[in-house]
Amino acid sequence: MRLRLRNIFLVYFVVSSVGLMYALLQIGQPCDCKGTNAHGRIQHSVVKGHRDLPEDDHLPVIYVVTPTYARPHQRAELTRLSQTLLLIPSLHWILVEDSAERSKSVADLLAQSGLHYTHLNVQTPPVMKLKDSDPNWLKPRGVEQRNEALRWLKLNKSPKDFGVVYFADDDNTYSVRIFQEMRYTQKVSVWPVGLVGGLRYEGPRVEKGHVIGFHTAWKPHRPFPIDMAGFAVSLSLLLSHPEARFDPNAERGFLESSLLGQLVSIGDLEPRAHNCTKVWVWHTRTEKPKLKQEEILEKQGRGSDLNIQV
Amino acid sequence: MRLRLRNIFLVYFVVSSVGLMYALLQIGQPCDCKGTNAHGRIQHSVVKGHRDLPEDDHLPVIYVVTPTYARPHQRAELTRLSQTLLLIPSLHWILVEDSAERSKSVADLLAQSGLHYTHLNVQTPPVMKLKDSDPNWLKPRGVEQRNEALRWLKLNKSPKDFGVVYFADDDNTYSVRIFQEMRYTQKVSVWPVGLVGGLRYEGPRVEKGHVIGFHTAWKPHRPFPIDMAGFAVSLSLLLSHPEARFDPNAERGFLESSLLGQLVSIGDLEPRAHNCTKVWVWHTRTEKPKLKQEEILEKQGRGSDLNIQV
Repeated sequence: MRLRLRNIFLVYFVVSSVGLMYALLQIGQPCDCKGTNAHGRIQHSVVKGHRDLPEDDHLPVIYVVTPTYARPHQRAELTRLSQTLLLIPSLHWILVEDSAERSKSVADLLAQSGLHYTHLNVQTPPVMKLKDSDPNWLKPRGVEQRNEALRWLKLNKSPKDFGVVYFADDDNTYSVRIFQEMRYTQKVSVWPVGLVGGLRYEGPRVEKGHVIGFHTAWKPHRPFPIDMAGFAVSLSLLLSHPEARFDPNAERGFLESSLLGQLVSIGDLEPRAHNCTKVWVWHTRTEKPKLKQEEILEKQGRGSDLNIQV
Repeated sequence: MRLRLRNIFLVYFVVSSVGLMYALLQIGQPCDCKGTNAHGRIQHSVVKGHRDLPEDDHLPVIYVVTPTYARPHQRAELTRLSQTLLLIPSLHWILVEDSAERSKSVADLLAQSGLHYTHLNVQTPPVMKLKDSDPNWLKPRGVEQRNEALRWLKLNKSPKDFGVVYFADDDNTYSVRIFQEMRYTQKVSVWPVGLVGGLRYEGPRVEKGHVIGFHTAWKPHRPFPIDMAGFAVSLSLLLSHPEARFDPNAERGFLESSLLGQLVSIGDLEPRAHNCTKVWVWHTRTEKPKLKQEEILEKQGRGSDLNIQV
């Protein structure tokens, strides 16, 4: 009896010690911070690493391609967009500067963003470039930059990487919901875009789950009358068409069609956002800030401190 | 010996059982989801409740006061701002509509935002109201709405509620960092604002930790030449001045001064954002969208579906 009690005690001691060790190890461990928000649909991870860290294994990756160029409100726009993207799990931001080299300003912003990202650059040929005085519809912007991102994807991703590619300009407004809609795209998913083409919204018309036409007023004869913000393409579809690119010489309004025409036909389009009845992305434009007082102050020797990044 | 061993066993059994119970209870508990992001400074909580839930006990509450009015890009602006605010812990959004009654559109947006919020409304008297054709500097906007929020705070909060009040218009751009800077405000904290007053930035000039003047070109004789986005006021200071309000009749550019003059002097201002050398908020403006095609389509019987909220 004396021996048996000691044995029971020893076994219990070993088992409970292991349990206690486990409990002690749990204390002070960081949380795996993911949750659903109030509408119970959006998951997001708080602490994001950068591109060296593996992406979330459970979800297809959303590759957000953003062309950008230097201007007074660039940091504001990129800050705002980066904070929206921070709410989306398993997202990889491909930011492509229209410049001869990658700028320190953008590199710093990306490094502090908490996002997975890739920082690229390519300069638009001068002959194709919009001048400051040109109206912004005169020439398409960001074509070379989006194509550079497509090149990067083809070099760095393989058909076994499950993902979707979205072309998100830095001045539009994105609800977190639109990213949720596009994640599981077979070929090309589509949805309405607000405040574009002179209308409250432009978007696909859907019947019985299929796209049967488009609500648009401007150049309705375009093969795909869809704004850049109104579609996403599956990574595997892009990788299986390694030559697919945006055409820098496309007629005004035909840039989206120049890519989509190489990948799908209208019948392949997958309507999203409740059969294209919800507007969760808006074609907003930010006013060019007026900085007339800078010169005046400078002449008085009281100009802005150029060490202060704006 | 036999008895002593049994006693030791019993004591150990009781102690380890309590430990085991604790460990079991910890399993399956939701994480307290707060983390630091890549730059290691911003804490934020993922899962936000709504106004019925208690605010975070550990942090002073940031009351963000946003006046808003119906316009084509209102939902876009509020969506974008709400998603920025979602990244900030212990924040309460006081959204005040310039309208005779609270709109369903805004109420829905708030309900789905995942934020703590209060939805108010008050109509600007017609004589004070900016017309669609007026330049936006002609009359101050949002005065009655900000004052309504001050009234609400005075009715619903007591001096023991530790917090800070920030007036955040719905078109500006906010880095999450600026909220971190303002949280611990004794009286009034201040920092630079980008792209305002015709300059790259306007902001306090600081020497030895004290505000000694302002970098500004426009009406430098203003008592407080600070944009609405460039300061925050401690809740206790506001509650100890129950009559403090924005003056609806203030001269152009003097609206901020009309409130601050009732609360502090320049010497009381607390410089933030690395002694006012960092721009973490920008006075961006969104272009009025052109919706000319709507009428044309309507005449053709193909107008936008008004059930689709933009």
